[in-house]
Amino acid sequence: MTLFIIGIGLCDVEDISVKGLNTLRSCDTVFLEHYTSILSSSKEELEDFYQKPVTLAPRTLVEGEAEENILLPAKEKDIALLIVGDVFGATTHTDLQLRAKELGVTCEVIFNASILSAVGIVGLELYKYGKTTSIVFPDDGWLPHTPYGVIKQNKAVGLHTLCLLDIKVAEPNREDLLKGKTTPQPPRFMTVAQGIDVLLAIENERGENVLTPKTLAVGVARLGHKDFKVITGSLQELREKNFGSPLHSLIISGKLSVVEEEALSCWD
Amino acid sequence: MTLFIIGIGLCDVEDISVKGLNTLRSCDTVFLEHYTSILSSSKEELEDFYQKPVTLAPRTLVEGEAEENILLPAKEKDIALLIVGDVFGATTHTDLQLRAKELGVTCEVIFNASILSAVGIVGLELYKYGKTTSIVFPDDGWLPHTPYGVIKQNKAVGLHTLCLLDIKVAEPNREDLLKGKTTPQPPRFMTVAQGIDVLLAIENERGENVLTPKTLAVGVARLGHKDFKVITGSLQELREKNFGSPLHSLIISGKLSVVEEEALSCWD
Repeated sequence: MTLFIIGIGLCDVEDISVKGLNTLRSCDTVFLEHYTSILSSSKEELEDFYQKPVTLAPRTLVEGEAEENILLPAKEKDIALLIVGDVFGATTHTDLQLRAKELGVTCEVIFNASILSAVGIVGLELYKYGKTTSIVFPDDGWLPHTPYGVIKQNKAVGLHTLCLLDIKVAEPNREDLLKGKTTPQPPRFMTVAQGIDVLLAIENERGENVLTPKTLAVGVARLGHKDFKVITGSLQELREKNFGSPLHSLIISGKLSVVEEEALSCWD
Repeated sequence: MTLFIIGIGLCDVEDISVKGLNTLRSCDTVFLEHYTSILSSSKEELEDFYQKPVTLAPRTLVEGEAEENILLPAKEKDIALLIVGDVFGATTHTDLQLRAKELGVTCEVIFNASILSAVGIVGLELYKYGKTTSIVFPDDGWLPHTPYGVIKQNKAVGLHTLCLLDIKVAEPNREDLLKGKTTPQPPRFMTVAQGIDVLLAIENERGENVLTPKTLAVGVARLGHKDFKVITGSLQELREKNFGSPLHSLIISGKLSVVEEEALSCWD
């Protein structure tokens, strides 16, 4: 018996691979991890297309309660855990694979498209990206400087930086948590404009001139979807654009080659 | 009419997405780019599974002769170009997308798994990789130092480096080329051991102590296949391991977190 961790791609029901689809159809139980990313298809659409009931797996189930709900049952029957995008985009799935090994649970992975390579569509060379970073909502006035440091380091050697923008799905707010309440808040997805505001606020605190309103960047939305959007421009310009519905990401450009310049100019 | 550039994943016929399969089945002509990577399925297996004839597209067709063979015909009919792995892993496909735009050819991309995110299975955090590099066969004694510089730069800030290993498919050798002959040579795929030899030869020329036989690394083979292999160890140790059939890649580790150390130790 096996735990199959299956990437289901970036957009909708049809982005699963044929191998992934055949595999999950042969499984006894199918979980969908739905807090590190989202699809445009609903749970019901997935169930119709897969011809299988799908159980939503919140963070608590995949992290704290994985042993009893996913790992130990996978010793008795075949279990599929579906991950939006590719499997190892979130550290938590590496942890799950580790715990499967420790418990002697056979674990197989079926890969799929990831934002990390899909971002190649904008025309910046994938091999010229440095470390990837995340920009989180500055809730309660807490403004982590991590993305600023990463961008600074990448820019210093001419590399591009992919900034993944925060996703909050079914999470309680901090105030509730402090009161011991875990009522989930409505989902929030950071927009390109919000991401830029966070970066410029950090620049304002640090003052190291890593980012200015004129810094060249690329905003992307809904990569992998038919109505995806790519807009290039200065942070100031992108700040004013409407990218539409989530998910958004932001790329801070490093040193551009001639081909990269040409590719970016094609999105106007 | 549209040019569909479709990633077909890392291993075999079943790695195409349902969307990719439905799309290519509705196309008039299907090309397979087969020089930047390989699948374990043959052209005939792909044709059987896809229920479509597939035309192999060598480098000359996708690069020099794309306009007459792929781009202009895509104004009159639907054409699929299949790419092993994900679509933008090779710069040449960005170039194709650019030329399509210039010629007013509608172009749609269907993403798939890439080595760039599949490598997450080894347990090193994907966001802690720096720039990606390639190690090429030191043919004719030419030993490009590029990968050494990239590893040095990544290691200096604690980041991991993914080294893609050279693939030569249907290429003439240099000697023949100089004589004006283009007879294709048998395919060659660089092994982990050959990649390590190249790196240590560069270290020997540079002497900057970036890499030693004791440097910690991870060798991987056939990621996405059932019989994939991951081995961690020093360059000296990995040099002696048999990784089996292609494709191989090599990761030079940066600074490890506790979870990463634990993850690597699980492959013993």
